Amino acid sequence: MQRIRVTKLFPHLLANSKSFTTSSSLIIPPLPKRPCISPFAPFSSGFITDRRNNFRLLNKPKSVSISTSLSSSAKEAMAENAAPLLSAVNDLHGGVRVEMKEPINPQEFGVLLRASMSQWRAQEKKGIWIKLPIELANLVEIAVKEGFRYHHAESDYLMLVHWIPVTADTLPANASHSVGIGAFVMKDNGEVLVVQEKTGRFKGLGVWKYPTGVVNEGEDICTAAIREVKEETGIDTEFVEVLAFRESHKLLFTKSDLFFVCMLKPRSFDIQIQVVEIEAAKWMPVEEYEAQPFIQNHKLFNLVAKICRAKSVADYTGFSPWSTTTASGKTTSLYFNNQYIDRIQSSGDHHSKC
Amino acid sequence: MQRIRVTKLFPHLLANSKSFTTSSSLIIPPLPKRPCISPFAPFSSGFITDRRNNFRLLNKPKSVSISTSLSSSAKEAMAENAAPLLSAVNDLHGGVRVEMKEPINPQEFGVLLRASMSQWRAQEKKGIWIKLPIELANLVEIAVKEGFRYHHAESDYLMLVHWIPVTADTLPANASHSVGIGAFVMKDNGEVLVVQEKTGRFKGLGVWKYPTGVVNEGEDICTAAIREVKEETGIDTEFVEVLAFRESHKLLFTKSDLFFVCMLKPRSFDIQIQVVEIEAAKWMPVEEYEAQPFIQNHKLFNLVAKICRAKSVADYTGFSPWSTTTASGKTTSLYFNNQYIDRIQSSGDHHSKC
Repeated sequence: MQRIRVTKLFPHLLANSKSFTTSSSLIIPPLPKRPCISPFAPFSSGFITDRRNNFRLLNKPKSVSISTSLSSSAKEAMAENAAPLLSAVNDLHGGVRVEMKEPINPQEFGVLLRASMSQWRAQEKKGIWIKLPIELANLVEIAVKEGFRYHHAESDYLMLVHWIPVTADTLPANASHSVGIGAFVMKDNGEVLVVQEKTGRFKGLGVWKYPTGVVNEGEDICTAAIREVKEETGIDTEFVEVLAFRESHKLLFTKSDLFFVCMLKPRSFDIQIQVVEIEAAKWMPVEEYEAQPFIQNHKLFNLVAKICRAKSVADYTGFSPWSTTTASGKTTSLYFNNQYIDRIQSSGDHHSKC
Repeated sequence: MQRIRVTKLFPHLLANSKSFTTSSSLIIPPLPKRPCISPFAPFSSGFITDRRNNFRLLNKPKSVSISTSLSSSAKEAMAENAAPLLSAVNDLHGGVRVEMKEPINPQEFGVLLRASMSQWRAQEKKGIWIKLPIELANLVEIAVKEGFRYHHAESDYLMLVHWIPVTADTLPANASHSVGIGAFVMKDNGEVLVVQEKTGRFKGLGVWKYPTGVVNEGEDICTAAIREVKEETGIDTEFVEVLAFRESHKLLFTKSDLFFVCMLKPRSFDIQIQVVEIEAAKWMPVEEYEAQPFIQNHKLFNLVAKICRAKSVADYTGFSPWSTTTASGKTTSLYFNNQYIDRIQSSGDHHSKC
């Protein structure tokens, strides 16, 4: 299973693989327009290069197809009997990565790519990665013609990959899940914060629901819950704990989804709704929320409501975030049942800022 | 915050937005090589089309740039005073989506795209989505030149998007998180299942660690934990509960990551290691596992070990998966503290198959 190995290579219990990233510099003939790569570019903290395993590009590739319209720079390099090749950095997994940065004639890129692929095949490289910024969209077709497939894309770049061995592809997958939160905000008098939305599935149904939102990439769950409540209702809150979470599959862009039901304690009480998204918001007795037909008739909503009620009577324990540090010294949050915190917390750990 | 609205549009508490997806058929002039779209293509279950809001393409766009080398089909269509346009499907968010399927001359695609953009601007559309299969990589450059940016990519396609309004982009983000598991498998005699890995960060360190792995897209956390233990050690297990989870950011491909520490009960005891990944595996007294310098000296490992120990003495409660159904009737798992299950479970809910 390809994804198994990825975890071994980027163990989740070590929060930052950057800590063991090194770079490789390559010996190549000078080419004025040669695409270059920065070993410090935010290519991916998951790409680990290996100084112990640098390769040299002095030996001529097995075969290089030369275009008659090859640029002078490439011709000069060939004349020097040193094949023009794409700059690349080794990774710890027996592959190489190329990050294109400068404009280059697509035909010349094709020549460099074919020569480089011959070199990498001779060196029995495995995964070949090419990162193309969107400004170099004219090179995508060339890479695909050379057998590369898409791996992932962000707004400003496309990552392509080519697995050379005949053995099974062990390339890592891109992010697989979206993450969302629902906020159960309850006052001491038993009233909960509810909203009606202007858009989406609940529009016009008259359903009063808890504020919900998406956890942004790079954002903590507890931070997202506090932000969403503030943005939708203007209410300041303090994060208490995760009461439950739900997993679903094949949602947005067919990805999987984790949704965390969070309890928060209000720190302010005057509601100011976000007019773009929210039709109405108010404090409602929790019994009235639970009595809504929509909540009564749908198992998932009903179960979540019962969990929130169990918490509201103060004897349900969820997971609270505790700040600790990883082997690489990076601060990280571990969510767990802190009913036993006195016994199990490590010295120096503390309740998360949330 | 653009991602806020996305959740309203794809409420996480409704597991399957397909349930309210409809398709739009469009009236367009016949073009032999006109790219077509299937309303049932797995474009994204998150894309919700709206029958109430079909638009018609009979009215000529405000401006259409005509290439002198425009294909005869396009010229004929123009001669009929009906502008050739890309087939599109409305979504519920005021945008449209185009799924290219058939080969088309890039220049003709450019003409169709510019004419369609003029039409969509006149109709005050918002997000314009174009899905290009990898076989049509020759069209990527054209779309980018027309102002489209990359949204995401999978092996076989690239999704591009263009936000027309001058207002803030409210387009949904792609998956933001990877998800992993660590398996705490303990025998009644207090021995835990540990492994040494052949690759990655722990290679050669002599550290005995719990089996870990990646949760695949579309896979349940409990299923992934059972699979990883079986694949690495050959041990059959029964899922007990999630003891804790950790969140980290900027890991593989700079995405965020959620790692779930799971407890499992062994159902077999004869270890058969996976030779490709695992150097060694054995049953080790939990005290010996905890006494390893690596575990002692790293806060996160140390804290996780203490949580597992708290569970092993039977008074720590984590989250267990319970199967329930969403508003759309889809089966889903809700993980929560089932110490109170008698009080809070809904009729018909049951412990997950895991």
